[in-house]
Formats: sequence, C-alpha cells, structure tokens
Amino acid sequence: MHSHEPIQTHRPTRTPSARVLARDLPDTPAGATATLSGWVHRRRVLASVTFVVLRDRSGLAQVVVKDPTTIEAVQALPEETVVEVTGTVRANPSAPGGTELSDPTFTALTEPALAPPAPLWRPTFEAGLPTRLDHAAVTLRHPRHRAAWQIASASMRGFRSALGALEFTEIATPKLVGTATESGATVFTVDYFGRTAYLAQSPQLYKQMLVGVFERVFEVGPVFRAEPHDTVRHLAQYTSLDAEMGFIRDHRDVLAVLRTTIAGMVAAIERDAADAAALLGVALPRVPEEFPVIHFSDALALVGADPDEPDLSPAHERALSEWARTIHDSDFLAVEGYPMVKRPFYTAPQGAPPPECPPNDPRCEVGRYSNSFDLLFRGLELTTGGQRLHRPSDYAAAMARTGTDPAVLAGYLEAFAHGMPPHGGFAIGLERWVARLVGAENIREATLFPRDLARLAP
Amino acid sequence: MHSHEPIQTHRPTRTPSARVLARDLPDTPAGATATLSGWVHRRRVLASVTFVVLRDRSGLAQVVVKDPTTIEAVQALPEETVVEVTGTVRANPSAPGGTELSDPTFTALTEPALAPPAPLWRPTFEAGLPTRLDHAAVTLRHPRHRAAWQIASASMRGFRSALGALEFTEIATPKLVGTATESGATVFTVDYFGRTAYLAQSPQLYKQMLVGVFERVFEVGPVFRAEPHDTVRHLAQYTSLDAEMGFIRDHRDVLAVLRTTIAGMVAAIERDAADAAALLGVALPRVPEEFPVIHFSDALALVGADPDEPDLSPAHERALSEWARTIHDSDFLAVEGYPMVKRPFYTAPQGAPPPECPPNDPRCEVGRYSNSFDLLFRGLELTTGGQRLHRPSDYAAAMARTGTDPAVLAGYLEAFAHGMPPHGGFAIGLERWVARLVGAENIREATLFPRDLARLAP
Repeated sequence: MHSHEPIQTHRPTRTPSARVLARDLPDTPAGATATLSGWVHRRRVLASVTFVVLRDRSGLAQVVVKDPTTIEAVQALPEETVVEVTGTVRANPSAPGGTELSDPTFTALTEPALAPPAPLWRPTFEAGLPTRLDHAAVTLRHPRHRAAWQIASASMRGFRSALGALEFTEIATPKLVGTATESGATVFTVDYFGRTAYLAQSPQLYKQMLVGVFERVFEVGPVFRAEPHDTVRHLAQYTSLDAEMGFIRDHRDVLAVLRTTIAGMVAAIERDAADAAALLGVALPRVPEEFPVIHFSDALALVGADPDEPDLSPAHERALSEWARTIHDSDFLAVEGYPMVKRPFYTAPQGAPPPECPPNDPRCEVGRYSNSFDLLFRGLELTTGGQRLHRPSDYAAAMARTGTDPAVLAGYLEAFAHGMPPHGGFAIGLERWVARLVGAENIREATLFPRDLARLAP
Repeated sequence: MHSHEPIQTHRPTRTPSARVLARDLPDTPAGATATLSGWVHRRRVLASVTFVVLRDRSGLAQVVVKDPTTIEAVQALPEETVVEVTGTVRANPSAPGGTELSDPTFTALTEPALAPPAPLWRPTFEAGLPTRLDHAAVTLRHPRHRAAWQIASASMRGFRSALGALEFTEIATPKLVGTATESGATVFTVDYFGRTAYLAQSPQLYKQMLVGVFERVFEVGPVFRAEPHDTVRHLAQYTSLDAEMGFIRDHRDVLAVLRTTIAGMVAAIERDAADAAALLGVALPRVPEEFPVIHFSDALALVGADPDEPDLSPAHERALSEWARTIHDSDFLAVEGYPMVKRPFYTAPQGAPPPECPPNDPRCEVGRYSNSFDLLFRGLELTTGGQRLHRPSDYAAAMARTGTDPAVLAGYLEAFAHGMPPHGGFAIGLERWVARLVGAENIREATLFPRDLARLAP
C-alpha cells in the first residue's frame, strides 16, 4: 500500500448567502439581503407588480417583483418550479408575517414544473380523493395534506417519548411469520424461499415474548391486513403503535399507561405541529387525569342493547362517546370487560368478582368477561388493550378451548414455560388517530401512500 | 338511553408496598422493607445460607435467605420463575451495589419455570448460535444478549433525535409495492388480492418523493431482501435507518448530516445504554468533526488495486479502514465517487471537474464517477449515500441508459416533473451497526428474531 494524497474535491458554490427559511424572514432585519429556497407556490400577476409566494418546509413567504425583466422571467417559472430567490428584506404589513422580499433575483433549480392536477395554493385541494391519491407525489404538497402527516409525525414522536420516559425499550419484530393464527383478520401470503410465509397482522406475540426480556417494550411499525372490503376505515397496511408491559396488577395499569401515552402524543402535537393543527382547525382533546371507565355490560344497558350482545356496534360506540362527553366531559371512554368470546385466545379473563357484587349481576359472572378494554375516542374505537394470560397452564387451556394447535405457536409458548410476569398492553392505529383528530371522512386522507384492495401505487 | 351508575371494579391488591427496581436498592435506606419483582436469575445454595439473584429490567439484586423454611421454599422456585420478594434492606459490601435484601418472603407469580437451554446466569451463553436463535424467547434474556439490543434501541433513539433536531419529518412508506425495479437484490413476492406485489427492499423512491413535500425526511422501518445465500452478513428482514434531504449542494452536505446523525447515535448509547455497552466491552467510536474522505480512484490506488476495478472488495474495505485509523485516527472513512456503473439509476454523476484537475487524471473524467459515497466503519461498509438526480430530463436519460421502463415508475417520476430540489440521503443498516459495535461475528446476534433462508421462526 503506497501513500497517496487525495485532491480536494471541487464543490459548487451555488449558495453564496446562507438560506433563510420562510418562517424566519420576519426576524431578518429590513434592508438586509436574504436568500430563500423553495417551490413557487403561487404567482399573482397584477398590472404593474407580480407577487410570488414561495413555499418551503417551514411555510410561505411573499416575494414582490416590480422590475419588468424579472416579471417576464417569472412567467417562465410555473407553480411548483424549485427556485432560489435572493432579494432585499422589506417590511410590508399586508405580507404574511409582515415581511416580504423585494428586488429579487430568481435562479431556477429545476426545469419548469408541470402543473399539479389542481392548484396547490387554493385553500383546499379541489380535485376528488382518487385524483389526490393517484398523484400523491405532488398532491401531498398541499399545505393541508402535508399538515395531516405532520400531526402523524408528531404523534409518533410523542408516543415514543412518553414510553421512553417510562423505561420502555423499543423493539423491531419480524414482519414475515410462519403462522397466521394470531388474529381473525385475513392475511397476505408471501413466497418465502419456496415456503409459504405470512405478513404479520400485529407484533402481538413478539411484544409479549419480549416482555420476558425487557419488561416494557414498544414498537412503531407497519402491520398488514388483507382486508377484503373497500371501506373508509380500513387499510391493507397501517402503522401500529404497540406497547406491552410486565408486572401489572390488571388491565387498569395498562389503561393508566395508555392515558400517559396519549397525553404525550397530544403534547407533542402542541409542541411540534401547532401550525399544522391550527391550519386544519384541529381541536386537540383534553386528556383527563384518568380516563372514565364503564363496564361492557353497563355500556350495553346504557345504549339499550340486548344484554347478551357480545360486541358494540359503531352506533353504540358513538352513543357511548356522546354519553362520556356529556357526563364526564371527556373525549375518551374506556369500555372494560369485553366478553371473552370476542377476544383473542391470549386474553386474561376478568378477575374474581368484588365482594359487594350481587350474585345475579352479570358483571360478576366468572369467565364471561375479560380484563380487556376498548378506548373510544370521539365516537370511534381507537385502541384495544388489556391484560394477557401469563401462566403456561392457562395457555394450554386457552389453546384447547379455541382449538389452536400448540405446535404452531411453540416459539411463543416457550416464553411462558420459562416464566412470564402478569402483563398487558395496547395498540393504537396511527392513521385512525390522525383521521379522527383532523376529522377526515376517509382514513386514506391520514396516510401518505395508502394501500387497499384496489391500490398498490404510487 | 337511561342513566346507569357503573360499579367500582374490584382490583387485586397484590403489591402492598411499591416495587423497588434492582438498580435502586442501594439507594434504599438500610433497615427499610422493600419489594423486588423479577426473575430468579440464579440460586446459590451454601451450607447454611442460600443466595437468590433476582433479575429485573434494571439489573440484578441479591437476596440472602437464612431461614430454613424459606430456603426450602426457594427450592421450588427454579431459575426464570417470576417472583415478588419482600424483605429488609441490608448493607453488605460483598453484594452487588453493596446492598442486599434479607429475611425475604417470596411470592411466585408464575408456575415454576422450565430450565433454559443453557444457564442464563453464566457470563456467556454456553450453547451455540442455533440453540440461541431457536429458543430466542428465553435466550434473549441473557444479560449479554439483552444488552446488544439495548444498544440497538438507543441507536434508533439517537438517530431520530439527531434528525428531529435538524427538522427532518418522520415518514411511514409502503412496504407493499407494485414494482421491483429499484434495487438489484432479489425480492419477495406477495399475493396481493390476486395480483403480484413485492416487499419493499428500501424506502428509497418514497423518501425521495417526500423530499418534495417535507424537504427533509427520515424513516426507521423494516426492509426485505430475498437474499438467496446463507451468510453471516445478510438478513431477509432488517431495520433500515433512512434519511433524505433537499436543497443540498452535493453529497458532501449529505455526509455532514450523516456525521451529525452518527454522533447522535453514539451519544444516545452513552446516555441510555452505558451499562449495556460496558457489559459487552464496547469501545464507542470517537466521531470526528468531519469524516475523512477519499476518492474512489485514490482508494483503489491506495490498496494497490487495478484502477479499472468498479468496486471495493471486503479486503479493500478493511485495508482502507486500517489506513484511516493510522493516518486520520478515525474509525470512519468516507469513500466518495463510486463509479456510476455500480450505482442505481437515480445516482447523480460527479460534478464538473475542478479547474486544477490534470486532464489525464481519472478522477476528472466526466460521467465516470458519481456523487455518492460509502461510509466504512471499522473495516466494513456501514452506509451508502449520495446525491440523487433531480431533473426530469436526467431521469429520462437514466431510464434510457439503464433500460428501465418509465411506465413502471410513473408515480415516482411524477415528483420530478412537478419540481424537485437537488437532494440526497443515506441509509444505515441498524443490525450491521450494532454487530460492528459489539463485535458480533454473525449479524443474527444483533437482532431479536432473525429471518433468513432457513429461519422463519420463532
């Protein structure tokens, strides 16, 4: 090996002055020279002046053009063209933020851009949802669409931050699995080196196993459901915010952590996505010190349903949320004690009845109800959670009861044979949370590139 | 709807005194009563005393048992049984942390646990890697195995935190895609409602599209490679730490952000996983203010390779890393200017040659080299990154040159037609990073539940 001195690589010096973000322009002294970079968001051509609104990651800034040569040059910079603009900072009370850039020089960083399917500068995107989704690469740039995802991004940060503070360890679990027995939902099959594998419908079994390692774990990741129906509520891939924790007394400990987590998510939106929330008119929920809780059987009675109903209908969920809003002044309501027959095999049954429980009260019936809950948020189920079984003998019984072959879950059942604490957890669907917050009618509006029965692109 | 007062749910009061974590026991006053919860890590039976080492998420604590009845009870609590222990805090200089729990009462929270495939309390796990992976649910509990993942978990946190501070937006992109043209690696096929879909090999195309929306984006998520060879370096699923940013001058701006990001990852390990790093004897790298950079053609010359070689061999990478350590005192070395022929179609070519470039220097040959880099870390390629094309006309030419049908990438190419800034990014393989840090010979040791040619469980 011989010594060799590398030459200094030549670097373009395209940006002589440092870039100023749109949101920082009002803090730049009037009279100073500043350079903005971004997309031509809108051009407004008046008789003797042209206004160019520039969009960057931080927001919008106004550039005023009076020089006839530059006005002509701007005609060759259609909306969405990427430019660098250097000009003089000037106070203008009628400009956004009270400041604009005047006497500008434009440098195009791209070829002139193709027009979007509908103008991105109008307050709302005026083409329908299919057009919006077909052309997501450009329509996501609309400030309202971008804002919805900024709320999603802040929510993920808040989720992790709240659980990190509680010493949860982040995990990454397999999305390719050998068995598909965990959930009733339909699964996608994968050709796995000639064998059949499945895309994981949730990290449920793995997060439980990892409670045996780290006690407290969370994962933010994709889950897959081969949902055969075209609905406004379901996606074939969505982002699941999963948590699981050991050494709980029962599901109420899980619910308390869920409350802290959601409070963290709301706080992160307030901190990191306040502009996005304001643009979309999002009224962030107040997260109470404790979520109000109602037992499933009480919930059925409250909405006047048959006491033998094993589940709540969407109409019931809306009515219960309305009740929580009126009686408890809460956007959230936890319904606990869902019937065991409607819950997966790993669900822990409700504990022994309280001493004061009347013998003929269905809420006291042993083995009928579970230590699980749904959290309703503004009329919709947001989260399912609860306590899981943790004793090997309970799993053996649950397998027998539900007709599950223990052999296909051998790697999972091993965790219990080797000692697992009482534990439980929850999962929040990120897109469902965001859709509910921003009031989207279709969950696809709360994703970047949705996947469904018909859609595999872009 | 009629009013209905829910009864108070009865809750077990299994934990009368609050739980103390093992690491907090030394801060508990001697003489106080304390309750620990965790796994029986080890029992040591001596003539007149039995020691029980308890393991929880925070570490280990010693319990000393002298009462004959309790000594007998402990015989029914094999290693890995989950217990709650209440006793008296006592100073003991020979106990871990100088403190132990004496006069204990044990409550088993599970049935007696099955013995692990090899004792978890020995300094290293004494069964081979296949046994370790086959029984991951229990073998991950070994403090050394757990520690490796704690370093992974801290690294993810540091990655996000560094990029979040630079205003990168977190994204979640589709893992089910309709085309498989992005990378040369083999793909998994999925039955997608009767059509063929593929598992995404990387979020590359989507992160670029989203630079058009957010300017700066990152994603931490699974990627899938149907790697047909059984090697110690490859996994069928791994965690990719991806970033992409707009308004760069060239790949050197990307490299600077990569440096900041890796510094953030190292800092997070120091802060959140210091015990894990110490247990594994990890020497964390010093991250220099700037990574040393060498041009690909200089790198070939340095290792004495043929100047027409289009790639570096593993032996070359090791030799170059050795050189960087000796000459630059750096664990990191960036090799820039990889030949265009070895890079994907979206790679930006090296810029115009510097004025001082000798005409016969291969480094000055237009179109031969790219504005991309590999970052070597301790002898191994850790990251590939670089500048991408951003003009639609450049993409049209690249498609023609590489024989790619533009129709299959229509949704991607739309982003460029509608205006995209100069941009670039990088991807770090999480497991590769951790394996290198902890000195694992096999990348499977740096995962929780690896997936490979042969392994789809647990």
